[in-house]
Amino acid sequence: MTTKEAVMASLNTIAVPGIPRSVVEMNLVRDIAINDHRVDVKLAAAAINKDTQDALKSQIEQMWGRLDGVTSIGVTFEEIGPIEVNNITNVIAIMSGKGGVGKSLVSGLTAIALRRQGFSVGILDADITGPSIPKMFGLNKIPEGSDNGFLPVISKTGIEVMSLNLLLPDENEAVIWRGPVIGKAIAQFWEEVLWGQLDYLIIDLPPGTADAPLTVLQRLPVAGIIIVSSPQDLATMIVKKAVSMAKLMNKTIIGVVENMSYLYVREIDKKIELFGSSKGQEMARAAGAPLIAQIPIDPELARLCDQGDIESYSSQDIERLGKFIAKTELNFPEGSLECKSCGNKCSH
Amino acid sequence: MTTKEAVMASLNTIAVPGIPRSVVEMNLVRDIAINDHRVDVKLAAAAINKDTQDALKSQIEQMWGRLDGVTSIGVTFEEIGPIEVNNITNVIAIMSGKGGVGKSLVSGLTAIALRRQGFSVGILDADITGPSIPKMFGLNKIPEGSDNGFLPVISKTGIEVMSLNLLLPDENEAVIWRGPVIGKAIAQFWEEVLWGQLDYLIIDLPPGTADAPLTVLQRLPVAGIIIVSSPQDLATMIVKKAVSMAKLMNKTIIGVVENMSYLYVREIDKKIELFGSSKGQEMARAAGAPLIAQIPIDPELARLCDQGDIESYSSQDIERLGKFIAKTELNFPEGSLECKSCGNKCSH
Repeated sequence: MTTKEAVMASLNTIAVPGIPRSVVEMNLVRDIAINDHRVDVKLAAAAINKDTQDALKSQIEQMWGRLDGVTSIGVTFEEIGPIEVNNITNVIAIMSGKGGVGKSLVSGLTAIALRRQGFSVGILDADITGPSIPKMFGLNKIPEGSDNGFLPVISKTGIEVMSLNLLLPDENEAVIWRGPVIGKAIAQFWEEVLWGQLDYLIIDLPPGTADAPLTVLQRLPVAGIIIVSSPQDLATMIVKKAVSMAKLMNKTIIGVVENMSYLYVREIDKKIELFGSSKGQEMARAAGAPLIAQIPIDPELARLCDQGDIESYSSQDIERLGKFIAKTELNFPEGSLECKSCGNKCSH
Repeated sequence: MTTKEAVMASLNTIAVPGIPRSVVEMNLVRDIAINDHRVDVKLAAAAINKDTQDALKSQIEQMWGRLDGVTSIGVTFEEIGPIEVNNITNVIAIMSGKGGVGKSLVSGLTAIALRRQGFSVGILDADITGPSIPKMFGLNKIPEGSDNGFLPVISKTGIEVMSLNLLLPDENEAVIWRGPVIGKAIAQFWEEVLWGQLDYLIIDLPPGTADAPLTVLQRLPVAGIIIVSSPQDLATMIVKKAVSMAKLMNKTIIGVVENMSYLYVREIDKKIELFGSSKGQEMARAAGAPLIAQIPIDPELARLCDQGDIESYSSQDIERLGKFIAKTELNFPEGSLECKSCGNKCSH
């Protein structure tokens, strides 16, 4: 006779069309019932349209031959939304207050670093009017979906991405929305995108301390914030506003990343501090959190971002960033007593 | 006997306390009546508090000795708001969509360049959540005001500045406001700040295409937009969103400024294109406007900005920028048939 575990293992080989992640990884499996030689599988319909449902149904029905003593498999779909299906262990917001210091870059590199360590990772691009993530990752596929939600688009290395730019007919088109509409779009990315089972969801916030960060910090279970800064005094002042917002909203800052710290000119073997001397330690003190990384200006990195190939970049800084976050205890969002992953006070 | 012209010339020596500009330059003079040996001056009370009114009154009353055949001067104040007093010839918005490409820098340098050519200039810092202008200009004085409005703060070289950071008790404090409140603050900076008579008001917009640019482009008589970009493809894409917004709203783009075009390393006499090769011409084509300037990365400029001493910077690019704007015909905002300065179709 077969077991639920064996059925799950088989289901884990069934990929959701258009996404190289299985129905198990997308957390779609709601119930498995085994009665004699019959197995019944109930899946969530979240964001899965009728065609995809039919395709999954027929694939799963044909799975019976692989299961010991099973002669037939029934598949039903339950009409529930992504928010009831998603199971995201750690939500991390990348914030700076100041524009152009490299929030999207740090969001991308953080996701890549965690992915390289084997975690399942998604990026929610909350910069609705200036979304950079799809371009960096070379993504231009339109997200699929149903009445019930959207599927994320998957990057080359398997990172789930949702961004308003993926939903626009032309990436150069302006999104001229007032703040509350922007807040609503971000809430939809949280509630109506099928993220499935994720170890980390990275939220790329826009500059400023207005609607977008406010919505994210109020409505999403953000477990930790990474503050991105640059060495210029001027930037530091604005970034401190983001720190002050995070503190006002009782959020944990897990670390500070300084971007554009210096430029290394090989010809003269010299580090040039283009934007002044590092303010990394000063920012770390202001944030009450460690300085995790100092990322230099690297023309090669700029080139890879422009080519949509950020995932082929590697550096020691990025590795350190990933390791630091992976070893940080994040499972307990401020005020919560339960691990978001398993419901207990644990280090899941 | 004296003349209105002679009275005006005398009034032009009476500075508004706290501002090194005269009651004439602030456009406060509403009426001058000459009857025999008596002159009556009516001033607007806009943003001028009771103490300042008393000080001005007493200074002006004592002016009689300087006026031919005048034995007494009467001064009255009319309770009207700044919006009725302000007379601004050209409103120019600095826009980019993308954060951190240097909007504030270009706003500051444009104001400085025009000021050096002898124009009266103001900067309205519309970046409510990330205001950089006061720090760049080394300004931290709290704006004075009355129930009727605020006075701008004046920079070392006489540029009028209004920014939310001047109104905060601590510059690091976050302004956590939803979009419509931000829009309202910008409208107040336009309606309730006594800008007086200005040749140019430069509006430093925040990143994005949401509330702040929307409010400015809808409610303020913007005569032209300068688009700021950087060479990175990623930035170009977002900046094109700003171009698309400007076009959708029927605004004239007067030119494109590319910032961070290159870094000149003196030791090896080489220009390094840190963020890829210039996209200036491409942006100019997309904007349908000329490429006015390409500003290199200059650590000296970053240092001056951090020290609040941007006004002591000079370069050929900046000079060219000022000359270009000064010779651009701007007096006729889209859809208007009247010169904003004199009410006629002219090149005032």
